[in-house]
Amino acid sequence: MTETNLLLPMRESKPRESGITVLIDNGAPFESLKATVDNAGEYIDFIKFGWGTSLLSKKLPEKINYLIRNEIDYFFGGTLFEKFLSQRKVEAFYDRCRNFNCNYVEISNGTLAIPNHQKAEYIREFSRDFSVFSEVGTKDSSEALKEDSKEWLTNIHEDIEAGAAKVITEARESGSGGICGEDGSIRGDIFDEIVAAGIPMERLIFEAPNKSLQTFFIKQIGPNVNLANVALSDVISLETLRLGLRSDTFHLY
Amino acid sequence: MTETNLLLPMRESKPRESGITVLIDNGAPFESLKATVDNAGEYIDFIKFGWGTSLLSKKLPEKINYLIRNEIDYFFGGTLFEKFLSQRKVEAFYDRCRNFNCNYVEISNGTLAIPNHQKAEYIREFSRDFSVFSEVGTKDSSEALKEDSKEWLTNIHEDIEAGAAKVITEARESGSGGICGEDGSIRGDIFDEIVAAGIPMERLIFEAPNKSLQTFFIKQIGPNVNLANVALSDVISLETLRLGLRSDTFHLY
Amino acid sequence: MTETNLLLPMRESKPRESGITVLIDNGAPFESLKATVDNAGEYIDFIKFGWGTSLLSKKLPEKINYLIRNEIDYFFGGTLFEKFLSQRKVEAFYDRCRNFNCNYVEISNGTLAIPNHQKAEYIREFSRDFSVFSEVGTKDSSEALKEDSKEWLTNIHEDIEAGAAKVITEARESGSGGICGEDGSIRGDIFDEIVAAGIPMERLIFEAPNKSLQTFFIKQIGPNVNLANVALSDVISLETLRLGLRSDTFHLY
Repeated sequence: MTETNLLLPMRESKPRESGITVLIDNGAPFESLKATVDNAGEYIDFIKFGWGTSLLSKKLPEKINYLIRNEIDYFFGGTLFEKFLSQRKVEAFYDRCRNFNCNYVEISNGTLAIPNHQKAEYIREFSRDFSVFSEVGTKDSSEALKEDSKEWLTNIHEDIEAGAAKVITEARESGSGGICGEDGSIRGDIFDEIVAAGIPMERLIFEAPNKSLQTFFIKQIGPNVNLANVALSDVISLETLRLGLRSDTFHLY
Repeated sequence: MTETNLLLPMRESKPRESGITVLIDNGAPFESLKATVDNAGEYIDFIKFGWGTSLLSKKLPEKINYLIRNEIDYFFGGTLFEKFLSQRKVEAFYDRCRNFNCNYVEISNGTLAIPNHQKAEYIREFSRDFSVFSEVGTKDSSEALKEDSKEWLTNIHEDIEAGAAKVITEARESGSGGICGEDGSIRGDIFDEIVAAGIPMERLIFEAPNKSLQTFFIKQIGPNVNLANVALSDVISLETLRLGLRSDTFHLY
Repeated sequence: MTETNLLLPMRESKPRESGITVLIDNGAPFESLKATVDNAGEYIDFIKFGWGTSLLSKKLPEKINYLIRNEIDYFFGGTLFEKFLSQRKVEAFYDRCRNFNCNYVEISNGTLAIPNHQKAEYIREFSRDFSVFSEVGTKDSSEALKEDSKEWLTNIHEDIEAGAAKVITEARESGSGGICGEDGSIRGDIFDEIVAAGIPMERLIFEAPNKSLQTFFIKQIGPNVNLANVALSDVISLETLRLGLRSDTFHLY
């Protein structure tokens, strides 16, 4: 990575199952995505085209071609799946993913109130042609608070059994909803239960859209935790957190 | 816009009177503005060159030429008008707007404590050569809290009678001041009174610099509400909110 | 700067000792740094390559060459010095600074708990080959609160006596730690003591990563206060604050 004689934590090189970074593209110009890849491609495993933004992005094909050439994978945000589902057009979503040569899809119920077993059915279906990232956790913060740790764990297990390659835990940009409490910090009961359950960490991806969440997961799980919803502009910054090169994680290694 | 078979809310195409998006350029490099326009020009109605930033922007002529070529209009932020006014140089501001071929000007008293009727005089004057966007609401948050809904309504009516093409309601980037209370949420008394007064919604533009304000106005007024002070990087994200393609407005349509 | 007939505060032109702006590059793509320099180079005195980000930046040589060509100086963030120090490799850091033709280095103890007199030793050493910016203040917010104003003043004087060209006061991006209290505002006791001590203002640089801190220092010390850790995207915005061209400092001049 860099010719320094500092001792730094080991990171696997791509493609990898642990230490994955998923950046979120919220409708950025092609030039911004390209510059990010040119600058830090080796630290980027996936680009997620956030919620429905990919529908409005004129240069989506250019973006996807550039990612493929740089060995970065990509998928459409789960909210887009839910939008198609809400209009009973899941097949059109399926076709869309195939047309854009997606290897991965995200299947979620963070917004649409469908029971987890129904989500699991879709995981099963999409698994035939795609690697599926499923998502657990509700976006609406007051709804999210009603979900307890048992429910989280049941859903995670159900998703994995249905064929999910990895399960993503929800956390919103604002830091509330999903696995976060109202004050933006992690709900310890859920997190502890997930860790205690012994699910292999390479099967989980934690959404960590801000520095405080990124720091939390790196401190708890280590430099090779899988993290998602990282801003394009934060990719190098996150890598320094993983490597103990920033104050917040300096003393870890 | 996009070849999907999803049912989405209707949006007029440009030029339009409703559903306008005004982005704010806070002194961005030319390349950033250009990339934003290339990526999402069809969703951008105006660029506002925020407060006095246009005085310091070396590439202002290039920016303006690029906007004209892409059929996006532009104007200088009201604070710049107020700065010239505070030094008794309104004519120089007038000339500046003409020199840059502005079709639009913003006339405000958000910082300078001049009475609304004096602002209305300037609206009248500038209306001879320009379309005027007037602004109502004080930037300073403690001063803003002293303004009641009657005063807001009186000022809006006075501005329209003086010739304002549209009236902009103030809200600061931080989410306080103007139409916002101290906690960043909308002051319901003012908003309700404005809606109840029956002013046509195409005559109003609501400043909505963050997602929570954007969501509020879209939920209250609909996908075709006029919104301003949207960050360059948020243009696609805002459009997904208008179209119900993001969790926050998913259930609206 | 600009052909307007507005009366604006005087600003020295570069190179200058007062009114310095230090931008922080947190691992931005080369293109972003270049666009920022092209847009606003005359307002940028230094680029600081934040904490350990420079180790991961593939295009660091291109960045540095571009800065040199545009007469902008640069240095590595103090946390990188501390990382080398924590592994007893200060000489390697010294060599690194020389290899990249640095004129400036930052020597700090914001993360690593070494006593100030030890930091002063390093200031003395590095001063032989570099201009040294030392930093005072602890990053960790609870540790920072234990430091009183006497300690701050003692440390500042010790750093200057050891040869520091300028002393930087710590304030984190989040607005806590260093000179800030838990709520993000400046700790008045420390700030007042620093001002009362009569240290020449050109010997101090205040970290001011957000608008509220920038406004505070400009209001207290004037348009030509030295400020650091300003985001690349805020350079024009900060200059408008210095010049009274934004609402927050409008009434100063």
